[in-house]
Amino acid sequence: MMSPRREIEAVAGDTLHWTGEALRIIDQTRLPGRLDYRELATVGAVREAIGSLRVRGAPAIGVAAAYGLYLGVRHCRGGRRAFFSRLTRVRMSLEATRPTAVNLAGALARQERCCRQASAAGPERLKEIVLAQARAMQAADAASCAAIGRHGSSLLPAGAVVLTYCNAGALATAGEGTALGVVYHAAAAGRAPRVYACETRPLLQGARLTAWELTRRGVDTTLVCDNMAGWVMKTKGVDMVLTGADRIAANGDTANKIGTYTLAVLAHRHRVPFYIAAPASTFDPAAGDGRDIPVEERDPDEVRQFRGRSCAPPGVAVYNPAFDITPGTLIRAFITDRGIIRPPYPRRLAARLAG
Amino acid sequence: MMSPRREIEAVAGDTLHWTGEALRIIDQTRLPGRLDYRELATVGAVREAIGSLRVRGAPAIGVAAAYGLYLGVRHCRGGRRAFFSRLTRVRMSLEATRPTAVNLAGALARQERCCRQASAAGPERLKEIVLAQARAMQAADAASCAAIGRHGSSLLPAGAVVLTYCNAGALATAGEGTALGVVYHAAAAGRAPRVYACETRPLLQGARLTAWELTRRGVDTTLVCDNMAGWVMKTKGVDMVLTGADRIAANGDTANKIGTYTLAVLAHRHRVPFYIAAPASTFDPAAGDGRDIPVEERDPDEVRQFRGRSCAPPGVAVYNPAFDITPGTLIRAFITDRGIIRPPYPRRLAARLAG
Repeated sequence: MMSPRREIEAVAGDTLHWTGEALRIIDQTRLPGRLDYRELATVGAVREAIGSLRVRGAPAIGVAAAYGLYLGVRHCRGGRRAFFSRLTRVRMSLEATRPTAVNLAGALARQERCCRQASAAGPERLKEIVLAQARAMQAADAASCAAIGRHGSSLLPAGAVVLTYCNAGALATAGEGTALGVVYHAAAAGRAPRVYACETRPLLQGARLTAWELTRRGVDTTLVCDNMAGWVMKTKGVDMVLTGADRIAANGDTANKIGTYTLAVLAHRHRVPFYIAAPASTFDPAAGDGRDIPVEERDPDEVRQFRGRSCAPPGVAVYNPAFDITPGTLIRAFITDRGIIRPPYPRRLAARLAG
Repeated sequence: MMSPRREIEAVAGDTLHWTGEALRIIDQTRLPGRLDYRELATVGAVREAIGSLRVRGAPAIGVAAAYGLYLGVRHCRGGRRAFFSRLTRVRMSLEATRPTAVNLAGALARQERCCRQASAAGPERLKEIVLAQARAMQAADAASCAAIGRHGSSLLPAGAVVLTYCNAGALATAGEGTALGVVYHAAAAGRAPRVYACETRPLLQGARLTAWELTRRGVDTTLVCDNMAGWVMKTKGVDMVLTGADRIAANGDTANKIGTYTLAVLAHRHRVPFYIAAPASTFDPAAGDGRDIPVEERDPDEVRQFRGRSCAPPGVAVYNPAFDITPGTLIRAFITDRGIIRPPYPRRLAARLAG
């Protein structure tokens, strides 16, 4: 294990690192107990890492999948036709790992589009394009996080009390994070935000990842169970709820970690503004509203067990959606890399995110 | 371990059993993995069992404390004055174990009152009175559960979808339960209720106890994480939310397991009726409203760890209230042993529960 100081330095930008031969990630299933790295040298390893949430967070899995696509085609032999046949097959296998976050399918579609536009290029050049796109998307995501942090922190008064959910931080992106990017930017500006982090059952990304990131960086953090959010909003002077997103429809309906919808209802009841922080790559204009977003359901044992230890009668029926849809009508604004976007949504989202 | 059939028979009425010499309880911290019994032969053992939640649930800890008071005075020597001095000391030590549920202090106060009213009785007779009161309260609680079940089940249509929280069942009472008593009564009447059980972090009474009770009795049960309640109400046709209570103020404000308030807000948003099932002993006319109810805070490690396994950075700050207060204005009705009580509350609660 590393020293705390080394760990702090390690995290920013270390969630995803291209070594030249492989994608090195922090294995997020081991946090907070261990800061372990893994080198993913094959597309199969990338698929496994995404499916088992070793790497997670919509922006991060978009970038990881993009490198995965390169790993899946780099040893491909044959001509252009063989290349494209393999590219499509690998793309579809990566897309199938997680259906909700649009960043993943979006990144892969963009890589394939760039290849098809390079009409004269041979396979070796096409492989270079796939890799160059992955690297460009990684850099763009880091820049998006910085812009989101800059725009969003203008919403935080000094000493703001922020309630956040799941992990939308450095571990969820190729940069400083979306929701937590806003918090870090405000902290760096001396405005000392205070954060309530909801633990986020079943996989505890809030307790394991967000609390770890925030405390390592010296942000005043209080961990609560998800069911405490209502009472915290009622009694603790919460100034805003701030989360990330996995996919945002044209009308503002937003898929994010299961439980986000409950927080939005609670925020509405308590007149607390509810903000979503997300890069343009998380917006999906092809989804008219929330009904067009597929919601992943995961293994019931995630709920029946708690970190591998049984906590329910074996075999009891479980409903385990990984996401829910928060209606755009409950979202005060979107904090994006293109600025803060307020209602009315279909119109203003389209205007700001076009092109 | 017992066979499933023996386990089903074991539970009803076995949460608390007076052997003649000691209070035998099911150790609820071991469920659902093990059905272990414990004999509590001293007041210290009863205090430990209540404080560590081996026995829990407002009605059950009221009865357990009542037996604890007897265990604390039965070997007392000396005259009347020595008896009352010890009685008061033991009562206060039991009251201090858990502050929120009024059943506990209420049961003890009633025993002390009965003793003081027996003005001519000597210490041995007074000890008999303390024990007789404990036995009477146990029998009364079982009868209350039956009455709650009978009254409440009239609210459940055939195939009703009920969302419940924490454990307000046979394990929380000396009878069939309060909220789950309603479910069991409807099931026995052939109306086949279906139940969503929220796991209830941090100590998972919903997953460990409610799911265990319900599945053992053949009730159609689906376990969910607490943060899924909003999405379940939005998408799964929930007909009602039904919970127990730890203390109910004169105006209907209700203390119950942390997270209950969130469910009440969600139910209001979805126009789902929210019911509290509780015996008269859980109503506290001395509390004008929720501000008069003390809310217990518990050990932060309950949130940082699960069964000794760390799930958060060690030492991260935690807020861990064991209860919250749901305003009476969000409660459609109280299902009590004296019938169903609807708003306006200060008046109708007082009228039905007086005497």
